[in-house]
Amino acid sequence: MASRVIPVAPFDLVVFGGTGDLAKRKIIPALFRRFVAGQFEEDARIIGAARAALSGAEYRTLAEEALKEFSAEYVENSKEVAAFLHMLDYVSIDATGDGGWEELKAKTSTDRVQAFYFSVAPSLFGALAERLHSYQIAGPEARVVVEKPFGRDQETAKALNATLAEYFDETQIYRIDHYLGKETVQNLMALRFGNMMFEPLWNNHYIDHIQITVAETVGVGGRGAYYDKSGAMRDMVQNHLMQLLCLIAMEPPAIYDADAVRDEKLKVIRALQPVAPHHIVRGQYEATDTAPSYRDDAENPRSFTESFIAMRCEIANWRWAGVPFYLRTGKKLRARSSEIAVVFKALGHSIFEGDTGPHRNILSIRLQPNEGIDMTVTVKEPGPGGMRLIDVPLDLTFAEAMAGTDSPEAYERLIMDVIRGNQTLFMRGDEVEAAWRWTDPLINGWEARNDVPKQYVPGSSGPEDALMLLHRDGRRWRDIKA
Amino acid sequence: MASRVIPVAPFDLVVFGGTGDLAKRKIIPALFRRFVAGQFEEDARIIGAARAALSGAEYRTLAEEALKEFSAEYVENSKEVAAFLHMLDYVSIDATGDGGWEELKAKTSTDRVQAFYFSVAPSLFGALAERLHSYQIAGPEARVVVEKPFGRDQETAKALNATLAEYFDETQIYRIDHYLGKETVQNLMALRFGNMMFEPLWNNHYIDHIQITVAETVGVGGRGAYYDKSGAMRDMVQNHLMQLLCLIAMEPPAIYDADAVRDEKLKVIRALQPVAPHHIVRGQYEATDTAPSYRDDAENPRSFTESFIAMRCEIANWRWAGVPFYLRTGKKLRARSSEIAVVFKALGHSIFEGDTGPHRNILSIRLQPNEGIDMTVTVKEPGPGGMRLIDVPLDLTFAEAMAGTDSPEAYERLIMDVIRGNQTLFMRGDEVEAAWRWTDPLINGWEARNDVPKQYVPGSSGPEDALMLLHRDGRRWRDIKA
Repeated sequence: MASRVIPVAPFDLVVFGGTGDLAKRKIIPALFRRFVAGQFEEDARIIGAARAALSGAEYRTLAEEALKEFSAEYVENSKEVAAFLHMLDYVSIDATGDGGWEELKAKTSTDRVQAFYFSVAPSLFGALAERLHSYQIAGPEARVVVEKPFGRDQETAKALNATLAEYFDETQIYRIDHYLGKETVQNLMALRFGNMMFEPLWNNHYIDHIQITVAETVGVGGRGAYYDKSGAMRDMVQNHLMQLLCLIAMEPPAIYDADAVRDEKLKVIRALQPVAPHHIVRGQYEATDTAPSYRDDAENPRSFTESFIAMRCEIANWRWAGVPFYLRTGKKLRARSSEIAVVFKALGHSIFEGDTGPHRNILSIRLQPNEGIDMTVTVKEPGPGGMRLIDVPLDLTFAEAMAGTDSPEAYERLIMDVIRGNQTLFMRGDEVEAAWRWTDPLINGWEARNDVPKQYVPGSSGPEDALMLLHRDGRRWRDIKA
Repeated sequence: MASRVIPVAPFDLVVFGGTGDLAKRKIIPALFRRFVAGQFEEDARIIGAARAALSGAEYRTLAEEALKEFSAEYVENSKEVAAFLHMLDYVSIDATGDGGWEELKAKTSTDRVQAFYFSVAPSLFGALAERLHSYQIAGPEARVVVEKPFGRDQETAKALNATLAEYFDETQIYRIDHYLGKETVQNLMALRFGNMMFEPLWNNHYIDHIQITVAETVGVGGRGAYYDKSGAMRDMVQNHLMQLLCLIAMEPPAIYDADAVRDEKLKVIRALQPVAPHHIVRGQYEATDTAPSYRDDAENPRSFTESFIAMRCEIANWRWAGVPFYLRTGKKLRARSSEIAVVFKALGHSIFEGDTGPHRNILSIRLQPNEGIDMTVTVKEPGPGGMRLIDVPLDLTFAEAMAGTDSPEAYERLIMDVIRGNQTLFMRGDEVEAAWRWTDPLINGWEARNDVPKQYVPGSSGPEDALMLLHRDGRRWRDIKA
C-alpha cells in the first residue's frame, strides 16, 4: 500500500535548541524523511537556533552528520540530502538576552506558517515567547511546539501555561507527546470509530480490564541525578500512559478534530478516581554483578524515587465502572516493549463439550518495538475431527502488507501536523493540568508516607508486589516481550 | 497446524449402491483418505452392495479405479492403497427380493458399529430397512445414512421418515447434507460461539442483512429430465441453503450436541415467514450459440421449472426481525461460488471529516471454491498524512496457515461422524419436514399462478429481477466470483 502524500504549505521552522540531542536524533531526520517523501518543497526554511556560535555552513555540517547517524536512508539519497541541507540555516541566539533576535527576524517572514520548536529547558519558554513577541518575529500563523516535561506538578504546569498564554493563543501551542504520533495509535482510532463492530463491545459489559505497559530495558544511566527528581510517575505516567489511557477510554467524539477529541480526553482524566496506596506499587532496580543499582545511578543512596511503577486505576463513568485499568512502566525491565491490551471478558459459557478454555478475545495494540494491532480470536482447530478450539492472533493492521510502506516516525507526522495546523494529536493545556491534578495527590501521598520503593531484579518484570496487584484480582499481566 | 487424529472404533460400513457415482466419487475416496490419516485400523470392513454381479476382487478393482480417478493422493500412497483395498468386499444384492441378504449377514457382525449407507433411490429405503431388520443384520449399534432428495414435499418426507422409523430409531438415522460437513461451516460455529466478540453483534441491532449464494456454472446437462421434476427450490434451497441459514440464524444452543443444535435449527425454520410472490424470482437459462437452453436440456419446451431462484426471506423472532435473508442459487451462473455474507449496518456516523465512506463490516463465509472466512474491517490508510480510511479483508480462518493441513472433504468428516455416533451435523426428521412445510406453499403458489420463470443469460448473475429484488431495498448482491 503506497502512502499518498499531500504537500503542506511553505513554512519556516525555527528549532530552539537546534544543536541538541532531540534536534539531531528526531527533528532533523524527521524533516528530511518528509522532504524525501515529497511533503514539502525546497522553499521551506529550517533554522537552527542555539547558544553556540556556528555559521550556517557549520550547522549544515552538523545536520548532515546527524542524518548519517540517525537516518538510514542517507546514503541512498545523496541528491535529496544536498537539496535538504540547502534549506537549513542557523542563528546564534541568546535566549535570555538580545543577541541574535534581529538576525532571526530577518530570516523568517510573518506571512508564512511559522513553527517555533522549543527544544529547550522549560525555564526558557517564557523568555523565548516574550522575545518572539517583542521582536515581532512571530506572525499570525506562528505556532509554538513544546516537549515534556511540561511542569512537575499542577502548579508549575499552570505557570508554564500562563507564561505561554501571555504571548500565544492556545490554538498556537503544540504540546508534543510522541506516543500520540505513532501510526498504531492512529489506527486504533480508525478501528474504534471506523467500524460498526467494535464500539458496541467497548464497555464494561464486554471488557474485563485494560493493561497498559511501557517497559524499557535501559536504566537511568547518565541522567540519573536528573531523573531522581522526577521518577516514573512524572516521567512516564502523567503524560504517555495517561494519553494512551485516554484514547482507549474516551467516548466517541462527534468529530475527529482537535477540540472534540481533547474534550473527550479531558473528561476521562477528570473521571479518573484517586488511587488507594495499596493499588500503587513503586520499585527501584537492584545492582547486578556488573551494573549499578538505581540508587547508584541516581547518585543518591537514600533515594525514594521510583524507576518502576504499577497502578490499578479506575474510571468512574457509565462506560468503565468496574473495569480496572492497570498501568505499569519502568526501567531495566525484561524487554523493551510498549503495549496496550484490551482484555475482553472470558466466554460466559462454552457450548463445546470437553473444551478446556477459557477463551478470551484480547485486542493488543503494540507501540514498540514492532508496531501493530492484533486480536486474539478463537477458531476451530483445523481437521475433520471434533470441535477443538484454539486461540490465534489476528493481525488487524496488516503489518506485513504494510512492510513496503515507509512507516512514518511519530515525529514526522507530528511536525507536519504542526505545519498543517492540526492540533488533534497534541495535548491541550487543560489536559496537562488535569493530569497533574490526578497525579499530585498520589505523589504527595507516598512522599508523606515515606513510601520505600520495592527493589526488583534488573531484567525482571518488576517487583513481586506488581504481580500481586493483578493476582489479587484473579488476573495476570501480559508477558513483557519484544 | 497439524491435525490431531483420534481413531474411531472398528466398524462395518455397507454401501448400498456401492457401484454408483456417489460411492466412487465421494464415499470410497473419503474412506481412503481417513484411512491414510490413521483414523481407522485395518480391521474395518467396507462392503459394497448393489445389483451387479461382481466378485469381491472385481469390486476392489472398481474401487481402485475410483481412487485413481477421484483421489489425487493415490499414486503417492500405493502401500496404503493395498491395505485399504484389503478391507473392501462386495455382495450382489436384490434390494426388493431375497438375493444376497444372507450373504451380507455373514459379512457383518451385530456387535460392531454398523453403518448402512443408502446411496440408492429413496423408493428403496423401505425395502432395505425392512430387510436389514428381518434378516437380523442390523445390531444395536447400527446406523443408516441417507442422502438427498429426502422427499419432494412434506407429505413424501413424512412417509419416508415413517418408513425408516418402523425399523430404526431417530438416533440411528443420519440424513447427510454435505454442506454441513465443510470445515468452514464448523469454523463459523467456533467463531460465533467461541468468541465473546461476535454474539453481542449478532442481531438486528448491528446486522443489516444476510446473503446466501450458491452459484454453479454447470447446467442441468444430462440429468435435465430428472431435474425438471424438482427445480432449484427443491434441489438446493430446501436443504443446503436452508441449513446454512439455520446455522447463521440460530440461537446459541446450550451445548454443541445433536439435539440441542437441531432444536435451535428447527426453531429457525419454524420462524421463517411465508414469502410473498414479489419476493421470489425464478429463472431459466437461455440458449447460447453453442449451448442449449434450460428447456432444451430439460427436454420440455413448456417447462416452468426454475434453474435459478432468488428470494427475500424473513425470520420472525426477536433476534432477526427486520433483517432480510436474501437467498439465491442457480445453474449456469457467472462463477462457481458459494458464500454466506453477513453484512453489518453501515457506520451510523463518521467522525472523520472528508471520509467518503460508507464503511461496512462484512463477514464473508466462503464454502467454495476457496473455503475460508474473512471480515472486512476499516483501518487507517498507512502513512503520516491525515486520517484516511480503507476497507480491507481480514482472514479469520488462516487459510494460508492451514495450507499445510489436508483440509478434509465434507464426506470424510461426515462419514467419521456416523461411525462416532455424532448426529450434530445431520438433519433430524422434524427439521426436514419443517423445511418442506415452509417450501410447499411457495411451490404450490407459483404452480397455481402458472408463474413463468424469467430467462437469463448463461454466465450472468441471473435474471434482472433478482438484482431488482435487492435494489428495491437499497442494497445489492455481492459479486459472484470464484
